[in-house]
Amino acid sequence: MRAKMVLHRNRKRRIEAGHPWVYQSEVNRVEGDIGPDGTIEIVNHQGVFLALGMYNPDSQMVARVFSYNRDEVVNEGFFIQRIAEAYAYRQRFLGGQSESCRIVYGEADFLPGLIVDKYRDVLSVQILSLGMERFKNTIRSALVHVFSPRGIFLRNDVPVRRLEGLPLETGVWMGDVPDRIEIEENGMRFLVDIPEGQKTGYFFDQRENRAAIAPLMTGWRGDKGADVLECFCHTGAFTVHAAKYGAHHVTAVDISESAIQVAQANAALNEVAERVDFVAANAFDFLRDEETAKRSYDVVILDPPAFAKSKRALEGALRGYKEINLRGLKLVRDGGFLVTASCSYHLRPEMFRDVILDAAVDAHKVLRLVHWAGAGKDHPEIAGVDEGHYLKFAIYEVRSR
Amino acid sequence: MRAKMVLHRNRKRRIEAGHPWVYQSEVNRVEGDIGPDGTIEIVNHQGVFLALGMYNPDSQMVARVFSYNRDEVVNEGFFIQRIAEAYAYRQRFLGGQSESCRIVYGEADFLPGLIVDKYRDVLSVQILSLGMERFKNTIRSALVHVFSPRGIFLRNDVPVRRLEGLPLETGVWMGDVPDRIEIEENGMRFLVDIPEGQKTGYFFDQRENRAAIAPLMTGWRGDKGADVLECFCHTGAFTVHAAKYGAHHVTAVDISESAIQVAQANAALNEVAERVDFVAANAFDFLRDEETAKRSYDVVILDPPAFAKSKRALEGALRGYKEINLRGLKLVRDGGFLVTASCSYHLRPEMFRDVILDAAVDAHKVLRLVHWAGAGKDHPEIAGVDEGHYLKFAIYEVRSR
Repeated sequence: MRAKMVLHRNRKRRIEAGHPWVYQSEVNRVEGDIGPDGTIEIVNHQGVFLALGMYNPDSQMVARVFSYNRDEVVNEGFFIQRIAEAYAYRQRFLGGQSESCRIVYGEADFLPGLIVDKYRDVLSVQILSLGMERFKNTIRSALVHVFSPRGIFLRNDVPVRRLEGLPLETGVWMGDVPDRIEIEENGMRFLVDIPEGQKTGYFFDQRENRAAIAPLMTGWRGDKGADVLECFCHTGAFTVHAAKYGAHHVTAVDISESAIQVAQANAALNEVAERVDFVAANAFDFLRDEETAKRSYDVVILDPPAFAKSKRALEGALRGYKEINLRGLKLVRDGGFLVTASCSYHLRPEMFRDVILDAAVDAHKVLRLVHWAGAGKDHPEIAGVDEGHYLKFAIYEVRSR
Repeated sequence: MRAKMVLHRNRKRRIEAGHPWVYQSEVNRVEGDIGPDGTIEIVNHQGVFLALGMYNPDSQMVARVFSYNRDEVVNEGFFIQRIAEAYAYRQRFLGGQSESCRIVYGEADFLPGLIVDKYRDVLSVQILSLGMERFKNTIRSALVHVFSPRGIFLRNDVPVRRLEGLPLETGVWMGDVPDRIEIEENGMRFLVDIPEGQKTGYFFDQRENRAAIAPLMTGWRGDKGADVLECFCHTGAFTVHAAKYGAHHVTAVDISESAIQVAQANAALNEVAERVDFVAANAFDFLRDEETAKRSYDVVILDPPAFAKSKRALEGALRGYKEINLRGLKLVRDGGFLVTASCSYHLRPEMFRDVILDAAVDAHKVLRLVHWAGAGKDHPEIAGVDEGHYLKFAIYEVRSR
């Protein structure tokens, strides 16, 4: 018999609405002994079964839902089925691009705290919860069973593990993992640094958004290619897309010399290096200098890192988003486009929209919304779980007012 | 010298934020005489120029912005330029599909109150404001100049014209207009009834959303096609897409016998008639009966007409949307998909999301959001103008809870 977690009578009925988290404050009592698998039955105050959770008494997030089937047993077969289902979902919606994509996205794939990214025949894995950590070896076996990968890398170097009482660690977890691997995205080639790159090595979440800029890159001044500025270009994914889709020239700015080195390699790999100029600079300063120099572009792309990493940091972040978008808008030629994104969860979609609109008023521009999207289809969202919706991406047409 | 409309000091600064409408209550006074073109300079309480508007003293919406250039002259050249710009925008974002699409979307194309849909070489036009009605003949000449169409049909049979003091009228406006014309959408063929069809003849706004259902139609039970139900199928656009994308079978329900006749013709035209069963029935009753009969589907599509045509009708409409989505969800097999839409402006996006989530709780389902979108790219939106955002479209994966 599994232990039971009895929830308070007075609580928001989030579990019933598909939300996967239980907080300490929602728990009335725990009955019975937790078995070695650390799973628990979550029941309401009347004892009615709600879901099965993975239990961590030392975390504020005391349980994470992984199943609505009371008889579910967590073993290798369970992981094989869940991972295979998640992979099938990507194959359905990404087609051939599922060769390299996010395969498991934690809670949204009913595997709370587990992230698996696939880079062709290599996997990069993050385990973010104690509940999953307990099944570490089983997960590795299941991954080997489903993908027969050349190698698996463990990127457990994320501070959030500390909240679960887990140590930080990275390293090869199985087989052979090259330092850099080449993947394909939207028909282009990108180098991914699996041990040292950001997060698990590459940002798959903007794949569809990168494809969405294609129509902006041609048809200027008698069918010329666009004159493009990208700020926060990181390893050059948007920049390479812009150039490959027909941009006449891209100016690509990032403060990190090492990111620019990878971006240069990516531009060369896609044979667009001669149409890209990389600038190692602070984007805020660069935008200000361009304005002073009265430069202008057909398309300005802003894909900054998260300015608001916490709720407390939101106010300063709002100023930052407003400033870059205001300055970016001023550099767009009449009838050109602003491509803008935010990956701060704390900046909610309507706040992001308001920031852009605010910047447009100050810049004396009228904007038309061409495209609005979140993360790509390999980052599904459970309906009603706002925490899963972090990425905002928009394309605006910019006109003078 | 143009007449001046001086706005009150205390008003929401909507014009400055790109909003195109001025209401009677915002106007302090009108100075000078309105010329024969009916345009007016809109200025703030300090006399600072904001925009040019088309004036209608007898409408609550007393001015509609058409330009931010004080020297703009409204003549054939103006209309030719605006219409050509709007067409270029569609060519950029729709490519070959701009052969048949919405070319001018009123305010969002800076031509307030003018709607132009293109059905290959025939145009269907609606004029919704007095300001535009004054330029009727100039608009016709400009359309002929830009498109050299075979014919233009005037669909001025919309009640909203009465608010502007305009009569209702329909008829051939120029050249030769066939009763039915065949258009192409996403590589499929559809018959459009220009004089008698809904609105201007066809709903272009769901083009991209219809394309988005493609990945749902295959890969079931050992690579079989999906078993699909569409309610409110109207003239069969989603149904034909489902079948062409590989559905094994589509049950298509609509209450209108005449709509089903066109839908049948469309199914035959696309050679999928043998995989579609049309049912003339009330969708609410049909869904209830299917539940009783314990029927289930891989994919359920709900694309109802607007249930909330006014703010007052919203409460009843909410019940209607909840009911069809609840019943629809119950008919989806575990791991299948619900495709659901609402075109009621008064049902705001977050309300629609909440209705679906509410239905999911009652139906004991957990939903994953696969896709969320509005109208297609031939229906641009001015940023901050909520009135332009009426269509909500979502694809959810449905799991039992």
